[in-house]
Amino acid sequence: MTSELEDNKKFSEFDRIFNPKSIAVIGVSSKGSGYGGGIIRSLQGVGYEGNIFAVNPKGGEFAGIKIYKSMEDIPELIDFAIITVPAQHVPEALEVCRQKGVSGAEILSAGFKETGTKEGIALEEEIKRIAAKGIRVIGPNCFGIYCPKSGLTVVPGPDLSRESGHVAFLSQSGAMTIDFAYMGNWMGIKFSKVVSFGNGSDLRDTELLEYLSVDPETHVICMYIEGVDDGRSFFRILKDTAKRKPVIIYKGGLSEAGKRAVTSHTASMGGNREVWESLLRQCNAVQVNDLIEMANASLAFSQLPARVYKGLSVTGGSGALGVSASDTAEIFGLSVPLFKKDIRDKIDKILPKPGSSSPNPIDVANAYFRPHRLKEVLLHAATDEKIDLHVVIKLLHHYKSLVIKLNLDSVKEVTPYKDLAENLKEVADRSNKPVIVVLPNIRQEVEAIDIEEMMREAKKELLNKGIAVFDDIKEALKAVSHVSVFYSRQQKRS
Amino acid sequence: MTSELEDNKKFSEFDRIFNPKSIAVIGVSSKGSGYGGGIIRSLQGVGYEGNIFAVNPKGGEFAGIKIYKSMEDIPELIDFAIITVPAQHVPEALEVCRQKGVSGAEILSAGFKETGTKEGIALEEEIKRIAAKGIRVIGPNCFGIYCPKSGLTVVPGPDLSRESGHVAFLSQSGAMTIDFAYMGNWMGIKFSKVVSFGNGSDLRDTELLEYLSVDPETHVICMYIEGVDDGRSFFRILKDTAKRKPVIIYKGGLSEAGKRAVTSHTASMGGNREVWESLLRQCNAVQVNDLIEMANASLAFSQLPARVYKGLSVTGGSGALGVSASDTAEIFGLSVPLFKKDIRDKIDKILPKPGSSSPNPIDVANAYFRPHRLKEVLLHAATDEKIDLHVVIKLLHHYKSLVIKLNLDSVKEVTPYKDLAENLKEVADRSNKPVIVVLPNIRQEVEAIDIEEMMREAKKELLNKGIAVFDDIKEALKAVSHVSVFYSRQQKRS
Repeated sequence: MTSELEDNKKFSEFDRIFNPKSIAVIGVSSKGSGYGGGIIRSLQGVGYEGNIFAVNPKGGEFAGIKIYKSMEDIPELIDFAIITVPAQHVPEALEVCRQKGVSGAEILSAGFKETGTKEGIALEEEIKRIAAKGIRVIGPNCFGIYCPKSGLTVVPGPDLSRESGHVAFLSQSGAMTIDFAYMGNWMGIKFSKVVSFGNGSDLRDTELLEYLSVDPETHVICMYIEGVDDGRSFFRILKDTAKRKPVIIYKGGLSEAGKRAVTSHTASMGGNREVWESLLRQCNAVQVNDLIEMANASLAFSQLPARVYKGLSVTGGSGALGVSASDTAEIFGLSVPLFKKDIRDKIDKILPKPGSSSPNPIDVANAYFRPHRLKEVLLHAATDEKIDLHVVIKLLHHYKSLVIKLNLDSVKEVTPYKDLAENLKEVADRSNKPVIVVLPNIRQEVEAIDIEEMMREAKKELLNKGIAVFDDIKEALKAVSHVSVFYSRQQKRS
Repeated sequence: MTSELEDNKKFSEFDRIFNPKSIAVIGVSSKGSGYGGGIIRSLQGVGYEGNIFAVNPKGGEFAGIKIYKSMEDIPELIDFAIITVPAQHVPEALEVCRQKGVSGAEILSAGFKETGTKEGIALEEEIKRIAAKGIRVIGPNCFGIYCPKSGLTVVPGPDLSRESGHVAFLSQSGAMTIDFAYMGNWMGIKFSKVVSFGNGSDLRDTELLEYLSVDPETHVICMYIEGVDDGRSFFRILKDTAKRKPVIIYKGGLSEAGKRAVTSHTASMGGNREVWESLLRQCNAVQVNDLIEMANASLAFSQLPARVYKGLSVTGGSGALGVSASDTAEIFGLSVPLFKKDIRDKIDKILPKPGSSSPNPIDVANAYFRPHRLKEVLLHAATDEKIDLHVVIKLLHHYKSLVIKLNLDSVKEVTPYKDLAENLKEVADRSNKPVIVVLPNIRQEVEAIDIEEMMREAKKELLNKGIAVFDDIKEALKAVSHVSVFYSRQQKRS
């Protein structure tokens, strides 16, 4: 294995790619139509602070930016280029970038290998040849890079977050890149680097993974893969990376129809389900089956301390919720152990009567159970050494009944979510056992949009306090189980 | 097996229970505190048309209703009673009801067998003895009956729908009853009869199931069970019922902690996971693992024609969505077969270029692809005899970009969901192959509440046209697979 220093040398150009001080957008119409104008609007929208240059042989101006007739005319050094011209003009544009000393270019244009035509395949080969001469290429047929720190963004992407975090995402699908980036906004996932690499003519899965494995800003790596270029290298790097940080992999195209779809999508080979699953397990990669599972897992990995989780305290507002959480925990290899007698007695003293239940799961028997009482309950629960994590299920929609009953103004004002967030943070801090919250919304009718608004505010508040929030107990425990299995295997192998 | 006629004779009293012309609420404080006042408010809220009588030894008036000092004072025949007095007074109240000729009573009060105390157990035994003398009992420790047709409702339940449908729900959990009833409002599930039977001292799982199996208003039966009274009878009736209509069962308490939780919840015995799963399979019951899966399955069963579904056409707005749907289909035993060449060619002529794909999954490559063009595509797809069902994945949030770009007023006005619903209904009608729609919302940030509002309107519109809508491709295909497996097994066994 190469050392981190050598790696860093190997990836010395990557900083200019992800954090460019100047960007050239090639293929910008002064009318603003097409991807060129779109990406400039996006860069301006997120507030990219570097210099943006536009290029089009026709010249002109767009969005307050002068359009240069050629790259050669630009009087400055360009770190990164975004190429949006039609496929047949791409090789020429790329070659000009290379000659100008641009470190890397993302090619958003489609019409290459994925078309399956002789022309498309030949054009992609030409790109590869130019890249090999000394310019790194993302794409073609991709959405490019989103990097919150530098303000490099994708189309559409003018309202993506500028807040940096530690989750990276590598994706062969542009649409999934956008979806995940937007989901991050409200799910509380903050990104270090996001790359939609499409056909992956040059930079792709293996090399980008290797880079992220030594990138200090990246703690959790997510990947959507339709096919890999060189399986042997990929699995070697994957196994190596998983020793340092979790790699969550969603492999698309494991079914017959899925394979057919990936061929026309990114010209990849799908591969066999059993083979993939077995290789991913051997590498201690975290395998997920859809985008939501990937997002939830990345949230859990970024919010929970790196440990093995087994025993859960489960607190819910109804008996059936506790039953359901307990059954679900078992399905995912977690447990809801019976509290010690003295702990049960202490909890019992706090819970309202009748109808409550203390043994674990805890049934607080009252939707309006006060957050500071909940804190006391959880602090007692945390003293049981069998407990590794607290799961709190809150049915906040009940506060709407209170609004109606007491003729109050708004459910957002009545619901004590700030209080809840503060008290739960205190539990996590004082007990050193993390808390996760499940906020299901069973009131999604058109008329109850105020409940949805309140829940979104509550979610935001909890996330701001470092508490992971999930919509659904099944999704929550699946995510926790991914974290637990990953660190447990990592320990066994080290 | 008894004939339907005999069954109907056996259940002759049940009509007075579910469709009472007069209700007595026993235990109503003139101050309106407690469950008694709550249920009266609920009955008034949903607009129950029969006569409501209130009873409390102290007399008085509540919500415009005179409170009688005793049941004997009420000058009319009472069909149904709702008992909310403290546990120790329940047997006496029930006995008075029986003597007055009340057909059935729901006992909302808690404090019986579920407490595990000698007193609680003895009180429940007394209830059983009185019931055996000639009055049917729902509960105790329950939320009672919700019947949209008659306006009989639960607490809280003043805003439950009065629109009748064909899905019944029997539940040992009161909270789950309320949750499911409210979910029906926006998921498009319409109920015939919903019963929260709590401890089930008299009427419970087996007998209620037997009744629903011959109830012409019920086409789909859902059950949340923590334990059954008499396993042999239950499975015999279940097997028999599943020959007539689908029975969807969510069994709580299959894990160690879950068993503990059900004991303190409804005093039931949990049972072994493997044994339950095997028995349910033998009976051709539809087993689900959570409330959402149950709700989605009941939606699919009530909206899709009773057939075996295997081949799907999948239409999505991006390549990765199609890949994901295809892989998911395989996991659930469904398939996304390649269309015949001539059909592919016809579809190709309609799809926008470049980037679209026709083989199945279909990638329309444009989020704004027109509904009437989509209709044409699906009508061609329907001519392939391998296709049994159409799955349309729509990412409606893209219309928000259009609003921003074109500086328009509201996303609700721009999004052509009415047009979509009409065109998809036409596909289902003309091709006799149903359509389901998946509407994921990846924009759930606080600021994008307008997208959520639009999506809820869209969902409503589609449901009104008889098209089942799901939030997620995985949940959707799991539900379809339940329908398919059920009818396939039913065919094999008949």
